[in-house]
Order: sequence, then structure tokens, then C-alpha cells
Amino acid sequence: MRYEEYTIEGRNAVTEAFRSGKTIDKLYVLDGCHDGAVNTIKALARKQDTIVNYVSKERLEQMSSTGKHQGVIAQAAAYEYAEVEDILQLAEQKKEAPFIFILDEIEDPHNLGAIIRTANLCGAHGVIIPKRRAAGLTAAVVKASAGAINYTPVAKVTNISKTIKDLKEKGIWFVCADMDGEVMYRQNLTGPIGLVIGNEGNGVSRLVKEKCDYTAAIPMKGDIDSLNASVAAGVLAYEIVRQRLQEK
Amino acid sequence: MRYEEYTIEGRNAVTEAFRSGKTIDKLYVLDGCHDGAVNTIKALARKQDTIVNYVSKERLEQMSSTGKHQGVIAQAAAYEYAEVEDILQLAEQKKEAPFIFILDEIEDPHNLGAIIRTANLCGAHGVIIPKRRAAGLTAAVVKASAGAINYTPVAKVTNISKTIKDLKEKGIWFVCADMDGEVMYRQNLTGPIGLVIGNEGNGVSRLVKEKCDYTAAIPMKGDIDSLNASVAAGVLAYEIVRQRLQEK
Repeated sequence: MRYEEYTIEGRNAVTEAFRSGKTIDKLYVLDGCHDGAVNTIKALARKQDTIVNYVSKERLEQMSSTGKHQGVIAQAAAYEYAEVEDILQLAEQKKEAPFIFILDEIEDPHNLGAIIRTANLCGAHGVIIPKRRAAGLTAAVVKASAGAINYTPVAKVTNISKTIKDLKEKGIWFVCADMDGEVMYRQNLTGPIGLVIGNEGNGVSRLVKEKCDYTAAIPMKGDIDSLNASVAAGVLAYEIVRQRLQEK
Repeated sequence: MRYEEYTIEGRNAVTEAFRSGKTIDKLYVLDGCHDGAVNTIKALARKQDTIVNYVSKERLEQMSSTGKHQGVIAQAAAYEYAEVEDILQLAEQKKEAPFIFILDEIEDPHNLGAIIRTANLCGAHGVIIPKRRAAGLTAAVVKASAGAINYTPVAKVTNISKTIKDLKEKGIWFVCADMDGEVMYRQNLTGPIGLVIGNEGNGVSRLVKEKCDYTAAIPMKGDIDSLNASVAAGVLAYEIVRQRLQEK
């Protein structure tokens, strides 16, 4: 289990962090800020015995790494990466077939955050990211995840191909997003599934693609090359949701 | 017809701008940069008789408003906003039922750019944005659109509600994204359609929502409130695409 220190910025993200029961070490609030959302956060902080510091705008600006603190910054103990095993256990607890996102080198923190947010809302059990050449769980990711990071486990692995191989042995099927594939509406995406999303510029790497069972394409009618990576992840994830709902 | 000056930053965005036939006034390239992608851009510039300036990293950094120029910045004559009428004509030319995105106060330039990108790829005929309280077509939007802005018309209107009313008279149905609605898979989203996406924090405003014919919900299983706005737009847009494809 590894740890990374991080700050949580913005009203939504801070509120969600408190509500999820995460340990917040310190809360920094803009001095003189008394509106409803901030008062709610202060009440949550009191309940958890979190130290509240009232600071100047300049101080907040200095601490902020996203530039969008909205008057509140929380310092969390650490973000705890999950293990792949935790993700499988979560599926088992919920008595659902595993549904996992595998991100092959997503570099943009906004995309990573938005994808974790999607994973949470579409009912996926976790997100797997690689250790190298990818965005980690920085403050910008935490903010873009809108609190989803407090609920959806994120595991970091050394070798994505090897992780896919191991999970295949446990009966999980892997589908990767690629324009060469069969149109997603015509593929069977039910059952235990891993959805593989590639890098913003280069797509899914060859080695990872070779490990996948299917390649699914989003139909494209336009003039440009590809969707934004977090949009593509969302569109494919919800095709999986649609097919799962139909099965019932 | 109104105009806004803008710069185009990053290799993909600049290449797409040239390929789409847009008039580029000036191209700024990082001095000493000779890799394949940059050489392609220089060749495109020569073909269009665009003036190429070789500049220092510091100079590019100064000019850049996104901070992600990747060694190339183009200055385009101006971005030409379309009229709503142009969007309808495009649908007519293609002999397709109109499919229009209406963005009710999207504030984040990354979201606006990603949505225009989605609109292009899912075969929508245009995007309508309001004049006030919304992101305009800045360099960050152009970059996030990955060139889509050169193909997909974007119209700016004073009053979104009034525009919806006018378009309803032309036989277009309006569906807005909202959690209160019927699950999207169970709604008929075929035919001439306007997809209304709300503000990142507040969703679709009451006045606009009242004008819509349907409210469609994306099924949510998770712990947090909502998807990222550009992801939600993508998921709904592709449900429309799926239903349109099935009809054929």
C-alpha cells in the first residue's frame, strides 16, 4: 500500500471528502467567507475535530495548485491507493460482475479526474492506472473527480499488460476503445468486463491492445480524429451500462 | 455576423486549422524544431502562403494563452460565428434531420471545446451557445476542440429560451439532460432534435427546462452527484446516435 499527500480544493470536493468520512488534517477557509456552502463545510469540520484556519486570499492562492479553490482548501492525511484485489472484492460485496476501468497512460489530470467521476456514476468497481507515463492523483485530479475519488478505488500497477493477463485468468473480459474495432452497439459487453482507455494522443498501446479480447469502436461521423479521452470513456462505459440494464 | 480574433495552439489544432482551409495569418514555430509533425505544419503553411516566424521558447510562452503550445502557435484571421440558420442549412444539405447541441451556460473552456469536438464526431449539425454567462471561443476552447471548431458551426444567441421556441416552430424537439427525467434508453430520441446541456454547477436553468419537450436522465449508480458536463453531453449524444442508427 502506498501513500501520496494531497490537498483538496473547491467547495464540492471538500464537502464530499468530509462526507465520505476521509480524515482531513486541516481546513483552510478564506477569512470573512460566511455563505451557506462554506458554513456547511465548517460544520462538517467541527464534527470531525478538524482544525480550521482562517487565512487571507493571498495565502490560499499560494497553497492552491489548481487555482480554483473557491475559498476552501483541505489537507488530507494521504490518498490511499487501492490494490486490484480491493476492486474485485468490492464487486463481490455488491454481488455484481466486475466492471473495471483500465487507463493506459492518461496524461491530463482533468481527463483522469473526469474518468474516475464517470467510473463512480456508471457503477464501475474501480480504476486501474499505470505507475509510469500517466497522471497520478494530484490535487487537480481530485478536484476534477468531484469527490468520486473518495468512493471509487484507484489502483496503481507496474505493468498494465500483466494486470490484464492476471484478471483474464479470473474470468474478466477486456474490451479496448479503438476506431478499428466493431461498432460498440453490435458487441456483447455484458458479464465481467474491463474497459481499456488509451492515451490522449496515441490511443491504446499495441502491447495492451494485443491482450484485449475485443476492440470496440464509437461510431464517428465527423471531420476530426477522435473524441476527448474522458468523453470516449463515458460513451463506452454507458454502452456497457445499457447492455447490463437490458440483461436484467 | 460577429468576429473574434484568436490564436490556435498545439500541433493537432494548428494542423487541423490548415487542413480545414481556414485562413491563417501567421504561424509561429519554435526555433530549431524540426520533427515530423512540425515539418508537416510548415509544409501546409507554405501551401497557403502563410508567413512563418521562427521564435524563441520565451516568445511562444508569452504568446500562449493555454500554456500548451507544443512549439506551434497560429494566428487566425478571426473566428466567424455562424447563425442558427446556417446550422439548419447544413442539416438540409446533408439531407438529415437536424441534430443541434444547445449549451445553457457552459463556463469551462475545456468542457466547451470537448463538447464541440463531440458534436462534430457524433454528426450534429451545430452548437448554440448564449452570449452571456458562458465561455466564448477562446484559444483554450479552440485547442480543446481539437480542430472541430473549423467544421462544426457555433452560433451565439442572446436568449436561449427564445431560440428554442423558434426552433420548435420548425419542428425540432428538445430534450434536456436532467436527473429528474426518464432514463434516456427508454425515450424516443429520434427525429429532428435539440440536445440541451446545462451549466457545470447548476444544470439546465428553469426557464430553459420549461421550454424543453422531454427531460432525459443518464442512469446513475454512484455516490456523487453528476458527471462532468462534457461527459454527460457525450453520453446523451451517443444515445441519440444509437437510436438514429437503429431506425435505419
